[in-house]
Amino acid sequence: MFSTQTYLKRREKLIQQVEDTGLLLFLSNGENPINFEDNTYRFRQDSTFLYYFGIQQAHIAAVVDLDANKTLIFGDELSIDALVWMGRQETLKAKCEKTGVTETRPYAALATYIADAQKAKRKIHYLPPYQPANKIALSALLHVAIADLHPSTALIQAIVAQREIKEEQEISEIEKALTISTRMHLAAMRLAKPGVKEYEIAAAIQQIAAQEDCALAYPSIVTVQGGILHNHYQGNTLQSGQLLLNDSGCEVPMGYASDLTRTFPVDQRFTAEQRDLYQVVLTAFEEAKNQLKAGVKFKDVHLHAALILTQGLIDFGLMKGNAADAVEAHAHTMFFQCGLGHMMGLDVHDMEDLGEQYVGYTPNEPKEKQQFGLKSLRLGKALKAGHVVTVEPGIYFIPELIERWEAEKKYLDFINYEKLKQYQGFGGIRIEDNFLIQERGYRQLGPELIRTVEEIEAYKMG
Amino acid sequence: MFSTQTYLKRREKLIQQVEDTGLLLFLSNGENPINFEDNTYRFRQDSTFLYYFGIQQAHIAAVVDLDANKTLIFGDELSIDALVWMGRQETLKAKCEKTGVTETRPYAALATYIADAQKAKRKIHYLPPYQPANKIALSALLHVAIADLHPSTALIQAIVAQREIKEEQEISEIEKALTISTRMHLAAMRLAKPGVKEYEIAAAIQQIAAQEDCALAYPSIVTVQGGILHNHYQGNTLQSGQLLLNDSGCEVPMGYASDLTRTFPVDQRFTAEQRDLYQVVLTAFEEAKNQLKAGVKFKDVHLHAALILTQGLIDFGLMKGNAADAVEAHAHTMFFQCGLGHMMGLDVHDMEDLGEQYVGYTPNEPKEKQQFGLKSLRLGKALKAGHVVTVEPGIYFIPELIERWEAEKKYLDFINYEKLKQYQGFGGIRIEDNFLIQERGYRQLGPELIRTVEEIEAYKMG
Repeated sequence: MFSTQTYLKRREKLIQQVEDTGLLLFLSNGENPINFEDNTYRFRQDSTFLYYFGIQQAHIAAVVDLDANKTLIFGDELSIDALVWMGRQETLKAKCEKTGVTETRPYAALATYIADAQKAKRKIHYLPPYQPANKIALSALLHVAIADLHPSTALIQAIVAQREIKEEQEISEIEKALTISTRMHLAAMRLAKPGVKEYEIAAAIQQIAAQEDCALAYPSIVTVQGGILHNHYQGNTLQSGQLLLNDSGCEVPMGYASDLTRTFPVDQRFTAEQRDLYQVVLTAFEEAKNQLKAGVKFKDVHLHAALILTQGLIDFGLMKGNAADAVEAHAHTMFFQCGLGHMMGLDVHDMEDLGEQYVGYTPNEPKEKQQFGLKSLRLGKALKAGHVVTVEPGIYFIPELIERWEAEKKYLDFINYEKLKQYQGFGGIRIEDNFLIQERGYRQLGPELIRTVEEIEAYKMG
Repeated sequence: MFSTQTYLKRREKLIQQVEDTGLLLFLSNGENPINFEDNTYRFRQDSTFLYYFGIQQAHIAAVVDLDANKTLIFGDELSIDALVWMGRQETLKAKCEKTGVTETRPYAALATYIADAQKAKRKIHYLPPYQPANKIALSALLHVAIADLHPSTALIQAIVAQREIKEEQEISEIEKALTISTRMHLAAMRLAKPGVKEYEIAAAIQQIAAQEDCALAYPSIVTVQGGILHNHYQGNTLQSGQLLLNDSGCEVPMGYASDLTRTFPVDQRFTAEQRDLYQVVLTAFEEAKNQLKAGVKFKDVHLHAALILTQGLIDFGLMKGNAADAVEAHAHTMFFQCGLGHMMGLDVHDMEDLGEQYVGYTPNEPKEKQQFGLKSLRLGKALKAGHVVTVEPGIYFIPELIERWEAEKKYLDFINYEKLKQYQGFGGIRIEDNFLIQERGYRQLGPELIRTVEEIEAYKMG
């Protein structure tokens, strides 16, 4: 946990920003059964609960009572039976003291507290539940059908405004995660050889995180089919001539994430074509990151990266015409179907549970939900100093998309289908790092992880 | 998947055993969000769904219509948008054909099918949901509050009767899991040295499973505090003079589990006291396993193991009096607070989601829920040829229990508290292997994993 002062200050600021009356209700996450009640996945606390309370425990809840000007935590101490199975643990009361909450009550008392507030017609602010158990819990507590739950926009907006600006101690945790993730990526580059299975590399990546008492921040993507954007199949055997795409990050014990991607040859060297296409992505990466600074809209950085990618693909011969016109027409989405990046912090897609319209966009400039490409861009709004974002341009060859769009004669002026069809099995290339936005620019977070063709080849040969 | 015939035969037998009318409704498991909707835990199919259908996919459902004598699967094929992100996959239709189901419908059609059956006053048999998302789904499908869901006893009993008798091909899968787990345990013994962190050993264990494309069957227990029965804290540093308890098993891609425990010194050799106490557990293990055969009640095997443990503890000086009297009085539960074992198969605690009263007991001889010790015995009923069970005796030193029972003057005739208090920090010892019950005895499953003091010391010195 951070210092008691940290949590007290964060809650104080939240109360100021919400500017409302009633209760703020925060549910912890629960234990999630795998195949029966007592066999559960690794417990992961809800990020907002972590941010304001720091307590890593399931089945507790916190209430910030705005009217009574006090904060309570509801939860149960371990029974003697549980002690036999779980061992003596720090009491909930002790944990609550560390977060600056002195009033604790049994979990069962929460229902009464909420019922009393409802009787008094007080507002109850709560967040959108994403774990099904919390949907059930909220529905029961509030006597409202799950479909009729109505999360508090005021609370969401106040939390986003606060959590999106990272404190120094948060940056430091993210950099710890990046230090470990850098080793995960170097190990993957070293292990990648013809004949090795993707899951063997994924196993080594996971071990490096686990050896440091860290979890993976998200399921690793370790694939020779990099054209599949979220490919979690890891059964392929690496073959000479292929590229391996590794998108892996870890989560430190305090909950903060990292999110890195490198793409590199299974062999020691890139082929000439791989090198040229890699260079297209690397140039877009460099150009995009150089645009980062407070005040710049991330959507504009995304479109700038799209322009650079398009120019590179025109030079390579897979696209044609004028690059700006092609991007204007969205023709680049044949190769770059997704967004350039997203916020990162306690969540790898930070605060995605609170709603992209609040985290990544503004009411005046909402997401373009109908536009292929832009509808996958999670972050479009103006950057602020203290934001932490990923930058992750890529080009992806998706056979289904190539077939379909050629049949539809789509973007004939911009796409060279004859040449493109020879690249259907090429896979994909992505390069991704994490950045802290500053007033006049950015700071790349974590240690430098080799990225150029020369660096990667030298490392693989070394 | 197993052969199409396998699934067809299993379902045919189920239909015969249920002996009822109406529908059998099976929901697949869903994806489980970690910290936001799209960041999910490793998908694990429901074991009963796996057993009867073999399809590893979330958000599908199967209906065996007993009246219409047909089986349908409800689920959706990937959209083009999903293809872009997930890649081309085997279609659901193709998977259904492999399991012998030719009639597939969109997932949304399930609600109509159920509603029609309800209108026609047909019975709808379903299983107890354990994942919260399936509680919500069942409640919505059946228009019944979650608290009022009423799983089908007829269906549960028919499934237990079938799944508890393992087929040859299931045994073979369990043995694959055991082969890998044996390597996980040898690696842990090799790595355990003063100065190493528990989580570093846990990381190596997980890597060995992951390298074989396997998951852990349950969160590993890797602890120098073996007295804590379900200790998932792994932050201790191993110290000279300690024992390390490692309870780890893996799950093969077909879903079958293994469940092994070894306890061994952090140093190369046991201390004299550790050796003597280890020998007590080992003798109980050997005596218990030798009792295994069809017709024997597992509760009797448990009590026999308790007797041997008690005699050993009397000889060692931690207990006193007559061993049989001590077990009769339940005094051994100071050291052996849990059960001797449980069923194992597709679940590490096989079918625990269906209810212990059906899997481990009979209506005539139910679990003794009020009795400390026996209330934690998951399996009491008579064994049958084809059952797969764990045998896992242990002795555990639990400071909270020692303090409390001494204060209560409990079992003063049988427990030597003066000596016991010197062992408060000793931890615990457990030895566990997996067995197939046969008509005249048992077959120990998987490769032999070193177990005696001499074997373990020789390995650690080797």
